[in-house]
Amino acid sequence: MRFPLSWEMNMKNYTQIKDLPNLSQTIKEAILLKMNPFGFQDLGKHKTLVMLFFNSSLRTRLSTEKAAKNLGMEVMILNVNDAWNIEFEDGTVMNGNSSEHIKEAAQVISQYADIIAVRAFPTLQNKAKDESEYILNNFKKYATVPIVNMESATAHPLQALADAITISELTEKAKPKVVLSWAPHPKALPQAVANSFVEMMQDLEVDFTITHPEGYELSEAITKDTPINHNQVDALKDADFVYVKNWSNYKDYGKILNQDENWMITKAKLGDAKFMHCLPVRRNVVVEDAVLDSEQSVVIKQANNRTYAAQIVLKQILEDL
Amino acid sequence: MRFPLSWEMNMKNYTQIKDLPNLSQTIKEAILLKMNPFGFQDLGKHKTLVMLFFNSSLRTRLSTEKAAKNLGMEVMILNVNDAWNIEFEDGTVMNGNSSEHIKEAAQVISQYADIIAVRAFPTLQNKAKDESEYILNNFKKYATVPIVNMESATAHPLQALADAITISELTEKAKPKVVLSWAPHPKALPQAVANSFVEMMQDLEVDFTITHPEGYELSEAITKDTPINHNQVDALKDADFVYVKNWSNYKDYGKILNQDENWMITKAKLGDAKFMHCLPVRRNVVVEDAVLDSEQSVVIKQANNRTYAAQIVLKQILEDL
Amino acid sequence: MRFPLSWEMNMKNYTQIKDLPNLSQTIKEAILLKMNPFGFQDLGKHKTLVMLFFNSSLRTRLSTEKAAKNLGMEVMILNVNDAWNIEFEDGTVMNGNSSEHIKEAAQVISQYADIIAVRAFPTLQNKAKDESEYILNNFKKYATVPIVNMESATAHPLQALADAITISELTEKAKPKVVLSWAPHPKALPQAVANSFVEMMQDLEVDFTITHPEGYELSEAITKDTPINHNQVDALKDADFVYVKNWSNYKDYGKILNQDENWMITKAKLGDAKFMHCLPVRRNVVVEDAVLDSEQSVVIKQANNRTYAAQIVLKQILEDL
Repeated sequence: MRFPLSWEMNMKNYTQIKDLPNLSQTIKEAILLKMNPFGFQDLGKHKTLVMLFFNSSLRTRLSTEKAAKNLGMEVMILNVNDAWNIEFEDGTVMNGNSSEHIKEAAQVISQYADIIAVRAFPTLQNKAKDESEYILNNFKKYATVPIVNMESATAHPLQALADAITISELTEKAKPKVVLSWAPHPKALPQAVANSFVEMMQDLEVDFTITHPEGYELSEAITKDTPINHNQVDALKDADFVYVKNWSNYKDYGKILNQDENWMITKAKLGDAKFMHCLPVRRNVVVEDAVLDSEQSVVIKQANNRTYAAQIVLKQILEDL
Repeated sequence: MRFPLSWEMNMKNYTQIKDLPNLSQTIKEAILLKMNPFGFQDLGKHKTLVMLFFNSSLRTRLSTEKAAKNLGMEVMILNVNDAWNIEFEDGTVMNGNSSEHIKEAAQVISQYADIIAVRAFPTLQNKAKDESEYILNNFKKYATVPIVNMESATAHPLQALADAITISELTEKAKPKVVLSWAPHPKALPQAVANSFVEMMQDLEVDFTITHPEGYELSEAITKDTPINHNQVDALKDADFVYVKNWSNYKDYGKILNQDENWMITKAKLGDAKFMHCLPVRRNVVVEDAVLDSEQSVVIKQANNRTYAAQIVLKQILEDL
Repeated sequence: MRFPLSWEMNMKNYTQIKDLPNLSQTIKEAILLKMNPFGFQDLGKHKTLVMLFFNSSLRTRLSTEKAAKNLGMEVMILNVNDAWNIEFEDGTVMNGNSSEHIKEAAQVISQYADIIAVRAFPTLQNKAKDESEYILNNFKKYATVPIVNMESATAHPLQALADAITISELTEKAKPKVVLSWAPHPKALPQAVANSFVEMMQDLEVDFTITHPEGYELSEAITKDTPINHNQVDALKDADFVYVKNWSNYKDYGKILNQDENWMITKAKLGDAKFMHCLPVRRNVVVEDAVLDSEQSVVIKQANNRTYAAQIVLKQILEDL
């Protein structure tokens, strides 16, 4: 598999996939890091990562914390909602619930951090507000240190980078076939993981298709000219990698309009493809046990690559500090 | 005091007292560690302990975190209930509250950890479920790294090891008399601490008796042939160490059937014995102030030994990694 | 600006400003630390700071954690209310909600810490109880290691030290004019920050005035002979530094008796003075946007100095261990 060299900027923030200066190089270096995870501890020495959680986290938290420590950084973690409510509007008379404005909050945290990582999910109720990425972008605007996205309203670029690393490691084909398939789920989930996976695949040398029920289109600003196939069985044919993920409806924003069990991924549908999922995954709802318990599932490898995705991102930011 | 050499296996997990390969050696090494706590920092270098709390913790958390750092390890802490609900049943259609199966959870956390420590209390409602140790044992089953028990449904082996260290330090007798006494408490408490203390005493060269009200028998699988005396005053006579602990009823599982204040430990009952308790302890309910405020109380020493109990366990596991 | 040499004792605890052995020297060293924050990492090596939070925290938590790590210390953080309820009364029969007495809690935590930092806000309901500083002082009484105050019922000496550092850095006058001004706020806030600022200014070579609405007097035990002016505009005239802070009523304890918007700080009132605030600050309630967004605001500098205030305090305590 070859990689296009499509980015040229220096790395300052990593809030979206496009922030990576060189994807091909990044993936290669991440795979090297995995063999030598403690080789760059001087880079992070006396540097502090502050991790801010507006929402809870397992994988992202542990893998990002571990990545930072692998690089010799100190890590400080703050669950924002335990601490205070932040005001994001300009010019407000703050006599309500918010006790601090993002202007101060972001600048203050920047005094204690060399890099700030932020996790902030969408409301799934107010599309315009979610798409403005008001939490992440206000941190980017007012912080005086680089910002890393640990999953925002519309994107999860650390997950997508781990996914790209995983695909790179597992294929020898010049252009493997990758399919992103929607699957049912009882709760309304964000589009963030799907969005970033789509954008990442568009930048890799892969044959990429999306399959989902009619009406479940992601934002066209994301999917662009990626082929969409509403026939799941047809889409999955001869796939090398099947990436499965539920998302709530984008047009009728945040709604659950479909829970069709026929969209669950089965061993039969999967064929010889590798099964990918960002986790957590609901067994026998999103995918049947037979898939997850087979050798074709690479979800644990993906989870492991979360560390090296975060580590290569932090490493590149540290190098540019 | 002499120690039997009753364990032979290598140390992989520490979920029960029997996992210790050599108790005598372990206690001796723990006492040496106390004099040189930072002497083995290379052992933990670039190794990570992930501590998972299904229940809150003070002593266990601080002492285990400190033990790991004394050994040069990195520590990452996760309060599980803040993060997500884990499914433990096989074959379930996960369309309810659980968002991740233990199969994935345990394997994923193993990607970020060299050792996983787990704290998970019993329900005190479903005896069979509690005795299956479904949380701890599923982590043991699916994790790919060693598991340490930071108090589970039926056992608290780190506490019992700290207790054994404390007794070893404080006695010069070949076979001191040790009594475990039940005491009243307003809340339903687990049997875990008592269970592990009983098992530990059975393996030490001590004259060991249990005293509790009739009907408050612990599991016979634990007590085996240890003498049980329902007359507390008689049981405590000439004791060298009195270990006090409430537990809820085991037969009528999890119930509080007795709150008899006469079972509270007093200075008069204690005689010349040392008073031991795992803490936290309710003053003037479990034991009167006069005992805790006297020189006979060794509870703070026990708390201090929690660090070295955890440290010697982590050290032995690290040596076998 | 000159500093009086008013303290002579060794540094054991830092629970109040008077605990600093030498304020002048402390401020100078803090400013030097800022240029060389990692210069004393041997001092904290193998030493542990345990931070106990009875109340949530952003700045104090991050800056104190960072300060300790700058000194090479290990840091362990415990949110007390998640863990257990502590009993503070002597002789109680503990059959209620409290599961551990401060006598044990403080001694136990001392087993795992070289220094304990405590944050415990006032009730704002029981004046006598708050003024007894029962949480902080009981830790001081029973802990066997030094105690640092991360904001207690009546004092916030780390904040006041950061404020003194900030004023020292920003003035070249021998005796700058400093004004503490009350401002309105929708919630009942403690007097702690104002109290410690007053005490700190009384010990610096500054021309210091307090302005607040009639009836909003702080404790006379704090203000002593510091001039109080109920005319805000008059008080602010020719000020070099205006420190703004709301506090709830002290006489009619914890009540909000005044929300007069005329007391909000405006650019017009500020003149050429520097604007200071401990943060978090409610924009357009306590102070208008035009002030915070101007060069005259030094609140971010103050927040940055929180790290060096904490670090010089921890450094002095470590040197005396």
